Amino acid sequence: MTTLKNDRLLRALLREPVDVTPVWMMRQAGRYLPEYRATRAKAGNFMSLCQNPDLACEVTLQPLDRYSLDAAILFSDILTVPDAMGLGLYFTEGEGPHFERPVQDEAAVDALGIPDMEDDLGYVMDAVRTIRRELDGRVPLIGFSGSPWTLATYMVEGGGTKNFSKVKGMMFDRPELMHRLLQRVSESVTAYLNAQIAAGAQAVMIFDTWGGALTPQHYEAFSLAYMQQIVNGLTREAEGRKVPVILFTKGGGLWLEKMADTNCDALGIDWTLSLANARARVGDRVALQGNLDPCALYASPAHIREEVGKVLASFGHGNGHVFNLGHGIHPEIDPEHAGVFVEAVHELSRPYHVGS
Amino acid sequence: MTTLKNDRLLRALLREPVDVTPVWMMRQAGRYLPEYRATRAKAGNFMSLCQNPDLACEVTLQPLDRYSLDAAILFSDILTVPDAMGLGLYFTEGEGPHFERPVQDEAAVDALGIPDMEDDLGYVMDAVRTIRRELDGRVPLIGFSGSPWTLATYMVEGGGTKNFSKVKGMMFDRPELMHRLLQRVSESVTAYLNAQIAAGAQAVMIFDTWGGALTPQHYEAFSLAYMQQIVNGLTREAEGRKVPVILFTKGGGLWLEKMADTNCDALGIDWTLSLANARARVGDRVALQGNLDPCALYASPAHIREEVGKVLASFGHGNGHVFNLGHGIHPEIDPEHAGVFVEAVHELSRPYHVGS
Repeated sequence: MTTLKNDRLLRALLREPVDVTPVWMMRQAGRYLPEYRATRAKAGNFMSLCQNPDLACEVTLQPLDRYSLDAAILFSDILTVPDAMGLGLYFTEGEGPHFERPVQDEAAVDALGIPDMEDDLGYVMDAVRTIRRELDGRVPLIGFSGSPWTLATYMVEGGGTKNFSKVKGMMFDRPELMHRLLQRVSESVTAYLNAQIAAGAQAVMIFDTWGGALTPQHYEAFSLAYMQQIVNGLTREAEGRKVPVILFTKGGGLWLEKMADTNCDALGIDWTLSLANARARVGDRVALQGNLDPCALYASPAHIREEVGKVLASFGHGNGHVFNLGHGIHPEIDPEHAGVFVEAVHELSRPYHVGS
Repeated sequence: MTTLKNDRLLRALLREPVDVTPVWMMRQAGRYLPEYRATRAKAGNFMSLCQNPDLACEVTLQPLDRYSLDAAILFSDILTVPDAMGLGLYFTEGEGPHFERPVQDEAAVDALGIPDMEDDLGYVMDAVRTIRRELDGRVPLIGFSGSPWTLATYMVEGGGTKNFSKVKGMMFDRPELMHRLLQRVSESVTAYLNAQIAAGAQAVMIFDTWGGALTPQHYEAFSLAYMQQIVNGLTREAEGRKVPVILFTKGGGLWLEKMADTNCDALGIDWTLSLANARARVGDRVALQGNLDPCALYASPAHIREEVGKVLASFGHGNGHVFNLGHGIHPEIDPEHAGVFVEAVHELSRPYHVGS
């Protein structure tokens, strides 16, 4: 494989010195970019875009051509895994994802298969290989998956949810069935992330979007335990380098210590806690990724720079910070504002790395 | 005024001994009850129900006739205040609240008046007086308001929001304008809660539904500072008794210590942290109200009792616990399950109060 020209991301995730703080944006390949909307229109719909490795590669690279980002992230959707497990994923305009066959009883849980990573999810692995080839070592490629609990919420509800009525109903009433479902999903996710690493992903991130909707005890038993299982099962080295693992539970600020105990390399941090607080609590055990409020990008360039400066100051000097938004960039954001953000991170972070 | 026959709520909010843990439910007068749906149909729509003191009283009392609850809470909406400030509130079916005249610039902020509590919001005060008369001392009546930040999100966005783009855009870009807006709202809310207390509310609760969407620094400056101002301005005694003040920031688990510093009497706690954790952090400074996950009520009676038992055990022995859900009861909940919940709190909490 080609030598990596910019390895700031991988170094920072392993708490090694860097010249400036690396930065990328969750959903950086997304609707806020006119070129993304054009490619998506060409693909026809969202799923055709995910399933076409050349177009998935095209949108993955678009933000890198605009901004001096320090990482690419695979363009895909977290629901590819349950789709490959047989649930029949489809999207409706304005309403988001749905499953034709939600998982709501014992028979449905027992019918779930572990997908074959090349037969059922080969389009994802092809996208990873294509992106790596086209990146040609510019920056590392991040692979990702949803967490088992997060995937299970969609699988049981049959789509998005505000109330979590069905999935929490199952969790409270039939905990053993919920555990069986999460076990199958965890095995699938472990295989999925390992296949992405084998195909060329140089770091992986687990998105636990809905772990923050749980009580502390349920979070540990129904979300964290399965992320732990995945971390234990992952290939942690490839191409002669460590493959860092990032865990991100949105709204998980109360549970950072327990997340750091999983032996992951880094924690994604949303904007509801300061990096200073997070760092004081997890010390040097893990790197931290975050955590500008995505809404700061609605502000004027001067205010964006100011807010970036505050986040950098909150982390302070030392290694182990990857700058990011605290959640995905919103579709309404002006692409120029995203550029101001990326430049501000590189420019304003330099003093924090002098002598490192 | 009539003697209060059941004062468990007021005693627990002031950390005084009680025989069993008092319990009420956020949104206990609500759509999960068929009798509520019937009264609402009679009223025509949601706002007519809020604005008719007799019907507002009727729905306030409905859950008390079904369950042995230890408190009534005024039936109203947090958006009555911005409506009275001139924004023109209306509701659309399935889409929630909207304002005809959102507050998005300097002129709109400067045009905001402080409503007259009897001229503009007399229907709320009439409802409080009617409910007190009809309650006839059965249980205390809780009054409430939205927090200034929470009200401002609706006022700036013009309705509900997922992204907070406009209100946070204003906060990041024009902090001084946002402070001016929040100042006016705080003055209105202080007058509103004091008028409710004068009309007969025996405890008051401030609902900060959207404080948890902020960074810690923005929470302190744009939400907590204004709740502090309100707490400072409230009448804390009426009819010869203290009027306890409850603060509730949904998703505010990281900031409990700062909330307890406001000199409020109690904190509402959602289900994302344990009462044991909350209690260890705030000690005996405030009482705690919460915190069963409202989704637990989807489970079977045996599991509901089990989850109630866990919350009671988490708080443990001693004074200062008011049982509640961590958020409003969902409209889909079986009313029988709500009954199981209320009975379980009284029955299972008795051992925690022996000797007190």
